[in-house]
Amino acid sequence: MPHDTAEPNQFRKVDVKTALQYGQASGLAPLASWVQQFVTEAMIPEAPYTGGLATTMTLGNTDGFSKALEALSNTWIEGRQPIGEREGILCEEYTFMGGVSTARARGLNITPIKADHEGMLAYGKGGLADILENWDASTGQRPHLMYTVTIGQNPTGAIMGPKRRKEIYELCVKYDIIIIEDEPYWYLQYPSAMSGTHLETRSSTGSSFLDSLLPSYLAGDYQGRVVRLDTFSKTVAPGCRLGWLTAQPTLIERIQRITESSTAGPSGFVQSLIAELILGPDARDSKNSAKSSGWNNAGWCRWLEGLRGNYERRMNTMCDILDQGRDVISTPKRLRFPSSSTIDSWDIVEKTPAYRFNRPGAGMFVWIEVLYENHPLTAHFAPADLAAALWVLLTHKPYLVLVMPGAIFGPTVQIVKESGWKFFRLSFCADEDEVISRSTTGFINGVAAFWQMRDRDEVQALIDEAHAEDIEREMAAMSPGFC
Amino acid sequence: MPHDTAEPNQFRKVDVKTALQYGQASGLAPLASWVQQFVTEAMIPEAPYTGGLATTMTLGNTDGFSKALEALSNTWIEGRQPIGEREGILCEEYTFMGGVSTARARGLNITPIKADHEGMLAYGKGGLADILENWDASTGQRPHLMYTVTIGQNPTGAIMGPKRRKEIYELCVKYDIIIIEDEPYWYLQYPSAMSGTHLETRSSTGSSFLDSLLPSYLAGDYQGRVVRLDTFSKTVAPGCRLGWLTAQPTLIERIQRITESSTAGPSGFVQSLIAELILGPDARDSKNSAKSSGWNNAGWCRWLEGLRGNYERRMNTMCDILDQGRDVISTPKRLRFPSSSTIDSWDIVEKTPAYRFNRPGAGMFVWIEVLYENHPLTAHFAPADLAAALWVLLTHKPYLVLVMPGAIFGPTVQIVKESGWKFFRLSFCADEDEVISRSTTGFINGVAAFWQMRDRDEVQALIDEAHAEDIEREMAAMSPGFC
Repeated sequence: MPHDTAEPNQFRKVDVKTALQYGQASGLAPLASWVQQFVTEAMIPEAPYTGGLATTMTLGNTDGFSKALEALSNTWIEGRQPIGEREGILCEEYTFMGGVSTARARGLNITPIKADHEGMLAYGKGGLADILENWDASTGQRPHLMYTVTIGQNPTGAIMGPKRRKEIYELCVKYDIIIIEDEPYWYLQYPSAMSGTHLETRSSTGSSFLDSLLPSYLAGDYQGRVVRLDTFSKTVAPGCRLGWLTAQPTLIERIQRITESSTAGPSGFVQSLIAELILGPDARDSKNSAKSSGWNNAGWCRWLEGLRGNYERRMNTMCDILDQGRDVISTPKRLRFPSSSTIDSWDIVEKTPAYRFNRPGAGMFVWIEVLYENHPLTAHFAPADLAAALWVLLTHKPYLVLVMPGAIFGPTVQIVKESGWKFFRLSFCADEDEVISRSTTGFINGVAAFWQMRDRDEVQALIDEAHAEDIEREMAAMSPGFC
Repeated sequence: MPHDTAEPNQFRKVDVKTALQYGQASGLAPLASWVQQFVTEAMIPEAPYTGGLATTMTLGNTDGFSKALEALSNTWIEGRQPIGEREGILCEEYTFMGGVSTARARGLNITPIKADHEGMLAYGKGGLADILENWDASTGQRPHLMYTVTIGQNPTGAIMGPKRRKEIYELCVKYDIIIIEDEPYWYLQYPSAMSGTHLETRSSTGSSFLDSLLPSYLAGDYQGRVVRLDTFSKTVAPGCRLGWLTAQPTLIERIQRITESSTAGPSGFVQSLIAELILGPDARDSKNSAKSSGWNNAGWCRWLEGLRGNYERRMNTMCDILDQGRDVISTPKRLRFPSSSTIDSWDIVEKTPAYRFNRPGAGMFVWIEVLYENHPLTAHFAPADLAAALWVLLTHKPYLVLVMPGAIFGPTVQIVKESGWKFFRLSFCADEDEVISRSTTGFINGVAAFWQMRDRDEVQALIDEAHAEDIEREMAAMSPGFC
């Protein structure tokens, strides 16, 4: 990167001198301008906005979400304001707790909606329509905000198809709900897992990679009620703290005013590095990719497609092993064949599924439901205790796997108690294939060993270990799982 | 900087791999740990905290202030909540409007306190005691927060000595006020301007440079009511967006929770670069500066002292020229000497001061009070109009100086109207001596020319230009002056 350039046009000026001065809240001009162009011309050309979508740089999606809430909600303080003034926010049944924490800190009423492998349910018991139609006003106002991750949802890996998306959007129109769509995993949509699941052709974006991705809520946002969060955390590095927010221009202007009086713009150091990566040191040629030394749109899409390929391979590595380990040996049974049979009476054993999961169509996570009701000691322990025991066992030698307990993704105490213990979230994002293979094998071996346990004292010892103060503290301190 | 290191201690680990992963809200461990040590052992060893002060990294002082307000105040919305619930914040009569904007966005009642060359007045009309004792409850609750810049205040350049500081602190004890001390210019205390003004010996910090600086409010904070903001913006680069906040541990813990649910920690890119600068690539040797390749405390202090020397030279360059240009030719008068005198009757003219200023003891700014009452046309124009005319004239050839009008630092409409027009803020921070010399000469020549104007139409034309819509918009959009 040059120290300074004579380039008079700030939108093409990528140099150290500019990056290290005070910047605009909207972001470093060349980078912000590339983001604007990439979003409106390549990512979401279908957006039905008369004047076009607007964008502004953020410090990543946690920051983007926090600022969207600042712009779109009023804080509420228990004991100080009546419950009738309390605003609310809808989210998936299991969700990224970083988002929930931000909303909870503002006093918002967190309202989870039942979800399946396509994410939030539009209809049916506990679905969006059900919750809104039968709103319980004793908990606060009916919500006008929604926090949702529709692609590779954290933690469930759910991916929302176009039909569900339209249903949800129309309910948001009916009940006047602003959708805050947090999509850090949007680029990680796996062709192998999704074949046949999403079938609408996108309008051509000029990139076969982008054409292969399910469109954003913004693509059909004819009422301007969608705020979308994108980040470089999952595509360049989490430590960047850099992303952007896309919405209607009026809201973007408000977000920029909020930025000026809170964080100021993102660090010039990271903005200039990423601008140089994408636009090259000679940003003047950015419109002409043949001449430019930067990646530009085509190079950026190739990078994203490469990332997707890597994660897809890791996902399949993990899921292939999980498939192998699903059915575990339960109680061996005596054969009922006649004794004249040549088959040894212990040769055949009953196999029972220890867990189930969907191969994720997107994202970085496998969400596993453990079937404790199939465990030989199920009659002797509460299933939540069996879950705690298994979690501890997995951390022991030789398994040495740390899985995220489902409970830490439950946005309400009720969900945590009712079903949080059923789930583990496994992540295939942070390591090489070999490590993923070893850890997942550790997981299935640990599960198999757990299903072999017959000694109640042994299980009780694991439960006691889980409830020991230091482990509980450690679990409480666990990151709600950025990654 | 190495890609990764085998160093197991995270407090000594400065590598790319760590910096690019998700970080702690408290900051990158080696940098956060250096800041903690530098603050408690070198900057403010006097702090009378039993368990010691605590620190946390911020995204610069705008972010630090915003988070301190989030932790220490409740938002108030006009028309929604009664005035009796409105909280307030005290600040200097003229102040950094970035801070005021942040407080205003939360609905806080901005309460300016009269100030002089030592900053906020403790006693006297409009001083702190006066405002608090005679609190006007119709504007909201009596404030429990103060925003103050005590060293090189922006825009006035004021620097607060120990006596005033003690008086203000004791009033804060009496009225239970938390002091948010924003000190971006603390290192820029100029020995040449201050000789004889501050006379308390600091306890030795181990650095003659640090010993030469006036202590922070924290040095005498026996009640734990001070929050201090420091930044790398003025010492490394404004584009860093990196700083830290120092306060009692309980508050720091709250600020870290706020950080987790809003901005997350600062960008790993900038944190690792600055960690490497200070601690060197081999942070393991940071305790032993003889071995370490980083700057460490001694190197950091040398860097700060060097910066101070540079700014001091620029300040003196600017102020020397301003001294020369202060007295301008007013109406030439006929001599009253007898006609037998050999002196030509037009040789002696009356000189009148066109402005006054104090040579700043710290910071980056000279605050000039223009004496429009001495202008030959003072009887024919409102002084605010003369001010507008002078501001425009200065932007014309051959002067070509853009000065900050005092009005944009006025926190209330009343101050802006009553006295905002009297002042200009000149900055000597952003350019080399030669540019400062040329611009300041442009300023004094422009002022001299303005005092020579006798043609009312000419002055009126400048006023009209100032009120032309585009200029007013430009002035309104002017940054409230980070620098």
